[in-house]
Amino acid sequence: MPKMKPRTLSGFMELLPAPQQQMERMMDILRTTYALYGFTPLDTPIIEDAQILLAKGGGETEKQIYRFQKGDSDLALRFDLTVPLAKYVALNYGQLSFPFRRYQIGKVYRGERAQRGRFREFYQADIDIIGDEKLDIVNEAEIPAIIYQTFTRLGLEKFQIRVNNRKVLNGFYAMQGLSDKSQDVMRTVDKLDKIGANAVREILADDLGIASETADEVLKFISIKGDNDTVIAALEGYAGRDELFDQGLSELKTVAKYLTAFGVPQSHFAVDLTIARGLDYYTGTVYETTMLDHPEIGSVCSGGRYDNLAEYYTDKKLPGVGISIGLTRLFFVLQDQKLLNPDLPTAPADVLVIPMSDAQQGYAISAATKLRDLGIRTQLYSEQKKFKAKIAYAAKLGIPFALFLGEDEENAGTITFKNLNTAQQQTAAFDEAAKAIAQELERRNRGRVILE
Amino acid sequence: MPKMKPRTLSGFMELLPAPQQQMERMMDILRTTYALYGFTPLDTPIIEDAQILLAKGGGETEKQIYRFQKGDSDLALRFDLTVPLAKYVALNYGQLSFPFRRYQIGKVYRGERAQRGRFREFYQADIDIIGDEKLDIVNEAEIPAIIYQTFTRLGLEKFQIRVNNRKVLNGFYAMQGLSDKSQDVMRTVDKLDKIGANAVREILADDLGIASETADEVLKFISIKGDNDTVIAALEGYAGRDELFDQGLSELKTVAKYLTAFGVPQSHFAVDLTIARGLDYYTGTVYETTMLDHPEIGSVCSGGRYDNLAEYYTDKKLPGVGISIGLTRLFFVLQDQKLLNPDLPTAPADVLVIPMSDAQQGYAISAATKLRDLGIRTQLYSEQKKFKAKIAYAAKLGIPFALFLGEDEENAGTITFKNLNTAQQQTAAFDEAAKAIAQELERRNRGRVILE
Repeated sequence: MPKMKPRTLSGFMELLPAPQQQMERMMDILRTTYALYGFTPLDTPIIEDAQILLAKGGGETEKQIYRFQKGDSDLALRFDLTVPLAKYVALNYGQLSFPFRRYQIGKVYRGERAQRGRFREFYQADIDIIGDEKLDIVNEAEIPAIIYQTFTRLGLEKFQIRVNNRKVLNGFYAMQGLSDKSQDVMRTVDKLDKIGANAVREILADDLGIASETADEVLKFISIKGDNDTVIAALEGYAGRDELFDQGLSELKTVAKYLTAFGVPQSHFAVDLTIARGLDYYTGTVYETTMLDHPEIGSVCSGGRYDNLAEYYTDKKLPGVGISIGLTRLFFVLQDQKLLNPDLPTAPADVLVIPMSDAQQGYAISAATKLRDLGIRTQLYSEQKKFKAKIAYAAKLGIPFALFLGEDEENAGTITFKNLNTAQQQTAAFDEAAKAIAQELERRNRGRVILE
Repeated sequence: MPKMKPRTLSGFMELLPAPQQQMERMMDILRTTYALYGFTPLDTPIIEDAQILLAKGGGETEKQIYRFQKGDSDLALRFDLTVPLAKYVALNYGQLSFPFRRYQIGKVYRGERAQRGRFREFYQADIDIIGDEKLDIVNEAEIPAIIYQTFTRLGLEKFQIRVNNRKVLNGFYAMQGLSDKSQDVMRTVDKLDKIGANAVREILADDLGIASETADEVLKFISIKGDNDTVIAALEGYAGRDELFDQGLSELKTVAKYLTAFGVPQSHFAVDLTIARGLDYYTGTVYETTMLDHPEIGSVCSGGRYDNLAEYYTDKKLPGVGISIGLTRLFFVLQDQKLLNPDLPTAPADVLVIPMSDAQQGYAISAATKLRDLGIRTQLYSEQKKFKAKIAYAAKLGIPFALFLGEDEENAGTITFKNLNTAQQQTAAFDEAAKAIAQELERRNRGRVILE
């Protein structure tokens, strides 16, 4: 038969078994952490009506979306988890309780130009809190706590959650008479780190026609730096001149105030006036999260407060706050930078049970069954191979324990087990052996997924 | 702004939060059980090169597949998890260890005619064991053990794993001189339950031109019934006349022999000669699983032994054995038949923390943070609502505990907590309260997902 060369499409992550185990651990941690904060899991279809997905329309989305016909249907693959959430909440409004807190970890699709570290199919891990008409500011203070817990549980230590408030920015630009240019100004200011203050000043003056004193004011404002108290004190200097600004400042202070109670150390949090988030639907607090030793990666968790989740589908006012982790890209970077803990088990099983001859097959099956009843992941090795090949199989997969069951063991009702890392081998009664194995497994699983 | 009516495509399951929690529990149990048997999780792309997915081609698959162009690429959505596995194993052959045991729980796509209980996007939950050149028969005996464990852990009791062997069937048909017609005969015989023996005999004689004595032999053979020993004894009567038959009988006996050691009770297992599985790539043991009180559902877990997983992609001979659970359909049926345990928690949180006034916001946040540190899923309720509305929110979501934190509690450093099921309310120190809550949660989570 002629063979077709197997391949996986470029831009589609497909992991070998060991890294897949690492990815699964990360997903487990995300699920558990999100659930701890009272978020309920959702699972929406990957295919939606194209018209509905593109209700907002325009821009990159239309170009990148996977859209196709099936019969008479105009279909598309979701390109984020926010639009499906908006559809879901609008559709099920009467059956949901608000605030509605959901998490979703799922694949999304964007037909971007393929390049290293860019994916066309990738996981997003989102949480959102949706209010009905209103949503209290405390929710905006809770988000950094969730980001902090999530990354800490993953094992990351050197990261910082940077927070700003769009009302502070928009209020400041209103004071400067720049309201109609604020989007352009923010886009320019966003480049500060990359192109420097002088280049920013030039664009503001030449391209946007902003007076040089005003440009200086803008640069002075976004250069406000320091610990949170310092930044907030500097912002107080602008208070009383614009209502929106004052409201934003009050929100920022509330968010900062509750952080300690929420368990976020000052070291991991910074008010940062340069954070704006490009998307124009954010209206209040905005978040970015950077790995301190890897600023080149950009934000690994971003989001913010918005006023209208589902305005394209319903008249209901549904304000919310949410964040998203680009999980596939994060995993790629962690793997690429060798930040994944190599000591955490990635084997498919904890124990490989090896009957020494066919006569011990039944005894081996019973032992494997009992180990599984104790929650120990166990593979029975039944292939007709040389003993050496069986051990090599366990070693190659990184299975930590091998059980050897021969005539002696069966007659005595014992188990011979070998720790393949230490080469230590012993024979014991089943219960004793199982206990020793479980203890060692517990120890080996204790580490964190990310090791900086 | 004009609104677009939100909708979800028909044939696409999208669950409300409470049933989604039940679905998540089922998936968790599948993941845990599969992992206990040494299967490693895989996650392959949903989009693949259409040519590769359709390498085998033909039949329903081509009609149902979601296929589309993006740029120059001819793409398609996977319609099962077996073809992507074949591609994966062929592609990564050199980096895998054999036997290669993988599980995958993922969505697949088939553009079937939409009707109640039929889905176009649905989860399959597959396990496969792939050998390199050879794969021992013991693996085929292990599969029913995994099916048994999986359904038992889900809570199902009244089910039966029905097993047959294609070599027994093909060997028998060879004895009757029916080898060239065996596919047609099996398809006919498969209808026995539905149309009865006489109608089967008619089709065999009239449509397939089989002599009436031979048709009688076929009907006699597939009518062999009884407990496993009886069926195997009856099969022994055909032994020694066809090599393939003898090999199949020996395999069937081996599978039956090891079942007790694997922990499968006789009551849940039956050798059933009417099981053939339509697909022609099965070559040895085949499995179906039926719910005894719901035979109309058909098989909820099927699979079998095959000789060549990846023959379209590689010359390597890769025999395997695998099973698949159609999870979305199973969930639909369980929900429809009201077999899902209504007492298992489906709330997004275990505890709703309610500060009695804004002054207790900080105390409430600290309490919520400490509960989460103990692994208790906690939602902080911060909205400006009447007390009654807050309690109604918890009740509607089925959150089992509410915490009331007022001035008295803050001053005394205590917590007032109410079990919303029993209406029992008490005030205690944090540690004591947390312990009482954790105990009650443990009790409530003890039940099974399926209750017959």
